Amino acid sequence: MTTAQLISQIKQKKSFLCVGLDVDLDKIPAHLSNAEFPIFEFNKAIIDATHDLAVAYKPNTAFYEAQGLKGWQSLQKTIAYINENYPEIFTIADAKRGDIGNTSRMYAKAFLEDLNFDSVTVAPYMGKDSVEPFLAFEDKHTILLALTSNEGAFDFQTKDADGIELYKQVIETSKTWTNAQNLMYVVGATKAEYFAEIRKRLPDSFFLVPGIGAQGGSLAEVCKHGMNKNVGLLVASSRAIIYAGNDVDFAEKARVEALKVQQEMAQILLDR
Amino acid sequence: MTTAQLISQIKQKKSFLCVGLDVDLDKIPAHLSNAEFPIFEFNKAIIDATHDLAVAYKPNTAFYEAQGLKGWQSLQKTIAYINENYPEIFTIADAKRGDIGNTSRMYAKAFLEDLNFDSVTVAPYMGKDSVEPFLAFEDKHTILLALTSNEGAFDFQTKDADGIELYKQVIETSKTWTNAQNLMYVVGATKAEYFAEIRKRLPDSFFLVPGIGAQGGSLAEVCKHGMNKNVGLLVASSRAIIYAGNDVDFAEKARVEALKVQQEMAQILLDR
Repeated sequence: MTTAQLISQIKQKKSFLCVGLDVDLDKIPAHLSNAEFPIFEFNKAIIDATHDLAVAYKPNTAFYEAQGLKGWQSLQKTIAYINENYPEIFTIADAKRGDIGNTSRMYAKAFLEDLNFDSVTVAPYMGKDSVEPFLAFEDKHTILLALTSNEGAFDFQTKDADGIELYKQVIETSKTWTNAQNLMYVVGATKAEYFAEIRKRLPDSFFLVPGIGAQGGSLAEVCKHGMNKNVGLLVASSRAIIYAGNDVDFAEKARVEALKVQQEMAQILLDR
Repeated sequence: MTTAQLISQIKQKKSFLCVGLDVDLDKIPAHLSNAEFPIFEFNKAIIDATHDLAVAYKPNTAFYEAQGLKGWQSLQKTIAYINENYPEIFTIADAKRGDIGNTSRMYAKAFLEDLNFDSVTVAPYMGKDSVEPFLAFEDKHTILLALTSNEGAFDFQTKDADGIELYKQVIETSKTWTNAQNLMYVVGATKAEYFAEIRKRLPDSFFLVPGIGAQGGSLAEVCKHGMNKNVGLLVASSRAIIYAGNDVDFAEKARVEALKVQQEMAQILLDR
């Protein structure tokens, strides 16, 4: 998917919501447990109930790998279901991969080609040749970890690295990589005060923003400091939406929560 | 596996060789391509031919994920085969994972519990709460990326971070984490001149050392500066061993290459 198509979808839906499909088998409604692929059935219902309110879905690979073979199959089925039924949706493999060049190429093939996600999250620690194989895919996007939403973000990311904080060093260095136009960045909502400065460094880039909802970040604050003329934000919410209910009506409950966020987003888009 | 068991195996085999099972379907002998699980059959033959010369095997998850479902099954079959037939072998899931706490817990479960690897490689960028869930497993090991073997290592890892280079910052900070005794570190062989200083900071830790062979690092140099009283090194070689041959005798050819490395290691152990 091109960035222009993503922007057009955001305008049409008046939403920049990304629903995180971080699905724990222990937390889904009991009536699904007899299905052959409970996690896929769960995802399917959530996607069907929220696809007009969200512009992106983001399965985190950890939750699927923790279910072994069935989990990998559920991931395959989920991305295939979205691509077939809702091709306008932007899909993110939240995988946080990164390895030496010939190995990163394998990950890029797995997520961007075989599974056919629109994008994949990538960790920057191993530098240029660990990220460029992902960037080589046309009309696909590499979402680089810059400043994450967790407490451990302060262990290294905010350390002074040759004069600027490490996450800024990551941002500045990444701009020089081949096909840097395919980069987006993870910027955590729990650090809203950082957004203005990051936006200055990356006026045109999209930010994937985790940390709204269960992790405590504020949507209004993030938008105030982080938006650009094309919105430039994908705000992720997972647990607060997908686990809103825990009974046969779980998908309707999820829709109610997604609608609340979408309406807040529509208002923000109107007011700006 | 405890560290003591690993050390005992090293002394017995006079080897600290870790064979990397980074298996590309395009590079394995043609006669295997009709098997139901070609990559597993390849691995099985390599393992049978080298298990007395190597103390560790390290499948890199990227190569398995790039083969989809069959790849994941091949990974499951490979680790199950080693655990059943060669329980003395130290197994490493080279996965370079790392995410927020509740997500890292899922990865830890997948690799250390379900697949039952002895260890997993982890990226440090997201800090303490992204690594500690791996460290929580008793008699399992978390192998943290410190200084990697690729060119991109110089993008961020060697940047000055609050007074010391980032990889040193990672090392020093990681020592303070809960269950830090379960940490090992990735230190690339292509940077042998760094070993002496890293060893000073981590006198008792094991280092997983990639970069020997195809990537050009020198075994003698690494050992000279990196060894400790318990050897403290696992030196990884992948392509140079597993692709030594490309015909029906590929496993014998791999054994010849593994034997060369093991003999060099035995001599180094004798001379020190």
